[in-house]
Amino acid sequence: MEGKIANLLDIAQWKLTPYQILVLGFAGLILGGAFLLMMPMASATGQRLSFIDAVFTATSAVCVTGLVVVDTGTYFSLFGQLVVVSLIQIGGLGIMAMSTLMAILIGKRINLRQRLVMQEALNQLSVAGVVRLMQYMIKATLLIEFIGGTILAIRWYQELGSKAFYFGYWHAVSAFCNAGFDLFGSVTGPFSSITNYVNDIVVNLVISLLFILGGIGFTVIADIWTNRRFSRFSLHTKVVLITTLILMIFGAIVFFLLEYDNPDTLANLSWQGKILGSYFQSMTPRTAGYNTLDIGKLTDATLFFIVLLMFIGASPSSTGGGIKTTTASVMGAAIWALIRGRNDAELFERRIPYSIIYKAFSVMLISAVLVIFITMMLSITEKQPFLKLLFEATSAFGTVGLSTGITPTLTTTGKLWLVLTMFAGRVGPVTLALALALKTRKGNLQYPEGKIIIG
Amino acid sequence: MEGKIANLLDIAQWKLTPYQILVLGFAGLILGGAFLLMMPMASATGQRLSFIDAVFTATSAVCVTGLVVVDTGTYFSLFGQLVVVSLIQIGGLGIMAMSTLMAILIGKRINLRQRLVMQEALNQLSVAGVVRLMQYMIKATLLIEFIGGTILAIRWYQELGSKAFYFGYWHAVSAFCNAGFDLFGSVTGPFSSITNYVNDIVVNLVISLLFILGGIGFTVIADIWTNRRFSRFSLHTKVVLITTLILMIFGAIVFFLLEYDNPDTLANLSWQGKILGSYFQSMTPRTAGYNTLDIGKLTDATLFFIVLLMFIGASPSSTGGGIKTTTASVMGAAIWALIRGRNDAELFERRIPYSIIYKAFSVMLISAVLVIFITMMLSITEKQPFLKLLFEATSAFGTVGLSTGITPTLTTTGKLWLVLTMFAGRVGPVTLALALALKTRKGNLQYPEGKIIIG
Ligand SMILES: [K+]
Ligand SMILES: [K+]
Repeated sequence: MEGKIANLLDIAQWKLTPYQILVLGFAGLILGGAFLLMMPMASATGQRLSFIDAVFTATSAVCVTGLVVVDTGTYFSLFGQLVVVSLIQIGGLGIMAMSTLMAILIGKRINLRQRLVMQEALNQLSVAGVVRLMQYMIKATLLIEFIGGTILAIRWYQELGSKAFYFGYWHAVSAFCNAGFDLFGSVTGPFSSITNYVNDIVVNLVISLLFILGGIGFTVIADIWTNRRFSRFSLHTKVVLITTLILMIFGAIVFFLLEYDNPDTLANLSWQGKILGSYFQSMTPRTAGYNTLDIGKLTDATLFFIVLLMFIGASPSSTGGGIKTTTASVMGAAIWALIRGRNDAELFERRIPYSIIYKAFSVMLISAVLVIFITMMLSITEKQPFLKLLFEATSAFGTVGLSTGITPTLTTTGKLWLVLTMFAGRVGPVTLALALALKTRKGNLQYPEGKIIIG
Repeated sequence: MEGKIANLLDIAQWKLTPYQILVLGFAGLILGGAFLLMMPMASATGQRLSFIDAVFTATSAVCVTGLVVVDTGTYFSLFGQLVVVSLIQIGGLGIMAMSTLMAILIGKRINLRQRLVMQEALNQLSVAGVVRLMQYMIKATLLIEFIGGTILAIRWYQELGSKAFYFGYWHAVSAFCNAGFDLFGSVTGPFSSITNYVNDIVVNLVISLLFILGGIGFTVIADIWTNRRFSRFSLHTKVVLITTLILMIFGAIVFFLLEYDNPDTLANLSWQGKILGSYFQSMTPRTAGYNTLDIGKLTDATLFFIVLLMFIGASPSSTGGGIKTTTASVMGAAIWALIRGRNDAELFERRIPYSIIYKAFSVMLISAVLVIFITMMLSITEKQPFLKLLFEATSAFGTVGLSTGITPTLTTTGKLWLVLTMFAGRVGPVTLALALALKTRKGNLQYPEGKIIIG
């Protein structure tokens, strides 16, 4: 009898696939978080958050999205805010990273099944080295968050007093995890994000450095730390760094050109403000979610441009979402090869295998279909301009968290769609990894090739 | 000396690539058409059409798009209308079909270069049989247009008198070529398309049958005519027929569900009108351009759904545009295989080669990038809701011609972007065919494979 209960508690006996464990883990964490957020002590006024808003907030935190239906800084009590930041930290590092931490803490040997789960969670190239990476990852995360939080605390001390330390570390976690949640509603008005600091070099650089480090992926950080010189980096690291750099420069230039005469955004700022504003808004769609300019006041062209940047998102095995920078690069290389009449898509003098090109295009198309479907569903229930709905759906899918401001006004149906989208956006790449892991299973028979005309 | 002039006139001596000949042919036809449309005798009032509007109209006619800045039925004189329908017929059949016709008429032997050009134009699988197909194509076109036009003339005789024959054949050409131009502005008010016949079975069926036949491609028509039974059809024919059928049924159901309670469209119609209206609006994005309901009054969800249908468009080597039904099917099969963990994408018990999957995804992505870019450009200059601009850009790219009604209000810059888009949408697939024809050229060296993390 005792043995049976022990078996029931031993998750390995459930015969769940790694994929199922991940999905159930995320879902459980969300429901647990929603339960805590619904407690009267979680709100500043002692009132009870509705179930849908609690689930929305918990999903947004666990999936490190940052879309909010209530303002985090004013609605929640200290307890509520600590629940949110805990969900962010757990969600950001990933459930599996947490269970590894616990496993390491109790000194338990890690078996192959758990390693495989971790591999899914991190989307790694091989099982080998996953445990080492996981330990490294947690140490690096805490170190980076501590340093970033300390600098922010010093910066905000004059302004906020002793609250600056709480704000500093809280926002350092939120920024590094690419969560985009903020507490400045209590300082500069609800849903204001960090728009008060559009001109501030320290806040801009620390926050953006935190989310860039969180968004380029731990493998890349480890590679840079170990090898130091660009020529020694792995292909993956090179592609991530160059793509991130290109998106940053290109994004900032386009943003500047589209907004420089917009009186609600760049037009009335100093040159420092214009440059910092363009830089920050070009980086935040990769998928941080903080904003220093009012997203709702951007021009339509800029909003659509940000939709594209959000769709691409961050880099693999990071705290960020989207189809990923590497996916975009591989598709770019494939099309470039096609246009130039080459047989092989190449990046940094390496040939990209067909299977990876196939995967990249598939990830993109499945993601596009999802975003399109959700936008259509939203357009049925929500009385909002189409572009704002597309923006909201892409932001949810990419776990970005930027919004034109419509999130709190959504109907319950609309909120439910976004909960699903945030969840799918966070878990999705894992599903695809699973699908590709199965790819080696052979069919019973192979049909002859068929000809078909394309395009 | 005489020999030199003869050489100059012999286009083969120019050493142009087939691709260049096609592009120059289209461009020349457009400029010639614009010149004719600018003549005072082309307009009903004798006034001169502006250069940009003339180029827009000629491009729209030659590329069989159907977007109009002036109402064809009221603005143009009989001469102007005949210029438009001639441009449609020439554009629809393709410049190369016309030059083949001429070659056949003067009994000249067709050399390999010309055959290759024709192959590009028709996007055929092999050079063999292209000439036969071309002859067949022209005969079939004229026969189908004659039959369709006669039925329409009989239907409209009571209403329009002797003008019914002119209307019948004019609209039969426009419908079969998937041009979407109409003359009913003079009967039911400018830009009304065939909205007056939303309840009319004859008009609905004849017009839709004409554009379906024009849009499924001549190879498919020939295959059906020759082989009669589905099991004997080529893979290409099977895929085109089933995809068209699925899009029709699925499209009509979605359209009905999204619009049944819209008082401006389906709500006040009889059941016959509801069914015909759903059927017709589900088919016209494939890329006919006629509409029996006011597109400007559809809900946002429906408009976006039609954007997707327009993006897919018609079938290869037809008078229609878009990324093509086969491209969509191949991508669908590829993703289905991926999800089910299969090695091979399969359609009708045939394996789809990787090269075709690669091409399908590339065609789709290049097309999406183009539509997105044009929409962004339009959103900078035009003061219109984003969705209407996306709709307009997709309609132009897919050479569909449906519009929410904003075309005549566009700025000159906006019109120029759409001219480019219509041209690119019509010529684009050929460019890609060219790119893939070059694909067999080997690079100097092959790099080793590189690993990269996707998604
Ligand atoms: K985020
Ligand atoms: K058309």
